[in-house]
Amino acid sequence: MVTMRDVAAEAGVSAMTVSNALTGRRPVSEPTRRLVMETVERLGYQVNVAARSLRQGRTGVVGVAVPTLDSHYYSQLSHRLVVAFSQAGLATVVEETHASREGELAAFRDSRLNAYDGLVIAALGLSEREINALSREVPVVVLGEQELHQTVDHVSMPNVAGAEAATRLLLDRGCRRLALVGFPTLEDVEKVRLPEGAAFSLRTEGFLRAARAGGADVTSSHHGVTQAAGVLCAQDLLGRPERPDGIFCVTDTLAFGVVRGLADGGVRVPDDVLVVGFDDVEDARFHVPSLSSVAPDHDGLVAESVRLLQRRIQDPAATPTDVTVSFELVERESTTPPARPARRTRGARPAR
Amino acid sequence: MVTMRDVAAEAGVSAMTVSNALTGRRPVSEPTRRLVMETVERLGYQVNVAARSLRQGRTGVVGVAVPTLDSHYYSQLSHRLVVAFSQAGLATVVEETHASREGELAAFRDSRLNAYDGLVIAALGLSEREINALSREVPVVVLGEQELHQTVDHVSMPNVAGAEAATRLLLDRGCRRLALVGFPTLEDVEKVRLPEGAAFSLRTEGFLRAARAGGADVTSSHHGVTQAAGVLCAQDLLGRPERPDGIFCVTDTLAFGVVRGLADGGVRVPDDVLVVGFDDVEDARFHVPSLSSVAPDHDGLVAESVRLLQRRIQDPAATPTDVTVSFELVERESTTPPARPARRTRGARPAR
Repeated sequence: MVTMRDVAAEAGVSAMTVSNALTGRRPVSEPTRRLVMETVERLGYQVNVAARSLRQGRTGVVGVAVPTLDSHYYSQLSHRLVVAFSQAGLATVVEETHASREGELAAFRDSRLNAYDGLVIAALGLSEREINALSREVPVVVLGEQELHQTVDHVSMPNVAGAEAATRLLLDRGCRRLALVGFPTLEDVEKVRLPEGAAFSLRTEGFLRAARAGGADVTSSHHGVTQAAGVLCAQDLLGRPERPDGIFCVTDTLAFGVVRGLADGGVRVPDDVLVVGFDDVEDARFHVPSLSSVAPDHDGLVAESVRLLQRRIQDPAATPTDVTVSFELVERESTTPPARPARRTRGARPAR
Repeated sequence: MVTMRDVAAEAGVSAMTVSNALTGRRPVSEPTRRLVMETVERLGYQVNVAARSLRQGRTGVVGVAVPTLDSHYYSQLSHRLVVAFSQAGLATVVEETHASREGELAAFRDSRLNAYDGLVIAALGLSEREINALSREVPVVVLGEQELHQTVDHVSMPNVAGAEAATRLLLDRGCRRLALVGFPTLEDVEKVRLPEGAAFSLRTEGFLRAARAGGADVTSSHHGVTQAAGVLCAQDLLGRPERPDGIFCVTDTLAFGVVRGLADGGVRVPDDVLVVGFDDVEDARFHVPSLSSVAPDHDGLVAESVRLLQRRIQDPAATPTDVTVSFELVERESTTPPARPARRTRGARPAR
């Protein structure tokens, strides 16, 4: 059996250097790290993860658990976290939870079984009680919108304020018949806060607050969270007797589907109706028309997640911290009618 | 210390059922699996991965290693693999390799360190020799376009034939001045096959074959692989004395950027120029205009990857298999001018 000493002798470095190269606990120059890795591969050195973990207390690996990778927002967020953890010397594995309680339990279990140093989880299915219990066994940072009463480290975005700003933009541009595309429906959101729709409920709250303050008519449609769902919402809204002149979508992904569904119905954005999204995914600026969106401070969100997880790993007893990052409203073509004459064709505004 | 027997007693099932629920080696009913998992969580049962691996030869976890999750194609592919492995009873962790040799070595190393049952890797940086050496230590399926001489299990898509079909579509629609947007440049591709651009080189080869057979003028532009790179390519092409009337992009992601860059220059798709992409990512059908694209059989690619990896895990000595999935050319709005009169405004065709 090949030992760490064998690797060290073969590579001509100390056993400590081999260890540091493998764990990333202390910095090692890039050429040395590469030499060690190649020697590890060549000799077929097998590190016993459990034993190493017991000896050193670290594996150098963290988990990131998101609902799905088939999502503009979560795939881009995962990428940013992988890059940021890598810069902090930590390897990252990404898991899908399918936004289910069971998938999220599995992410905690896998973190413990594989002795990951910590876990960043966008928790949608687990209750606060469950997260608190699990966080005692695995260093964890929770992303998202559950109200966690500062019992775990928690990083979130300004959902209510962002949605308010987006809705006020539509009002400022002259919209008076506003539609919400999201989940849950207006009726649902006033009845119950679904855990799986917590961020969306908050965005709905912001929409309603601004729309009512502006005296606009409001309507809504929801069919799920995908681009295909957005298409269905657009079909819904085009079938209404009073068509909306401004649409706020709780995610950019839904907004892309809405714009597509409007185009299918011969309705142009921004000439005939204005559309604004939320998340500012990268695609927003490449669509034609480019999509106006609420841009949470993505870099801040990722930096705070990495910072808080590293702190939690170092000091499991640290006081839990709740961080809400800032946001910016990015105005693009979807809320910028190119010429006034085109807008007049949108039909008479209702007298209010 | 909590043992598997404690979990079994508490849940009222056999120790074998607990084991099967944890490893997924044999099927367990969903309610039973859930009961076992909840009991594992409640009692804080710690499975020793290395010990379990030695005892049972399986961890029930596979790795998927892709260049980046910040990519339409790779994020959607990763999602499909996670779902398919989940249906096969295997948990999946996803890692980014950043398309580097070092990142890919790390994926193999992590697979071995964490005793994953196998690895699916979109290998771009490693040489064939290296992949062959590593594949003796970890059950592996390679995705992508390296010429591997059937020494490892390998699943790929029809890059040359797909690109030829896409280019012939442009010719059939009357295009005579064709542009390639991709990587590497036409000059590069004839000099050297860069490992990191293998699939793109094959797509370029298909483009050139069809364009030359059709007697079209060809030009090209490349600035990288992102949407932003596509915008730059469009700017390039709009600055040429003879503007292209048809553009083949080696990925849909580049095509989205190209369409955006053309719009910035006041050039409309498909009215002024036709555009076709490759990969048929989900977004292709939601953009306005929707994007024509080469659609490899995504389901087949994923199913073959799962099948071959499962077989390799069961039988490490199985004969390596090389699978190329089929494809379909999906025609959408970006190659379908809405009205003939609009097309006549594209300018006179060169006499050839």
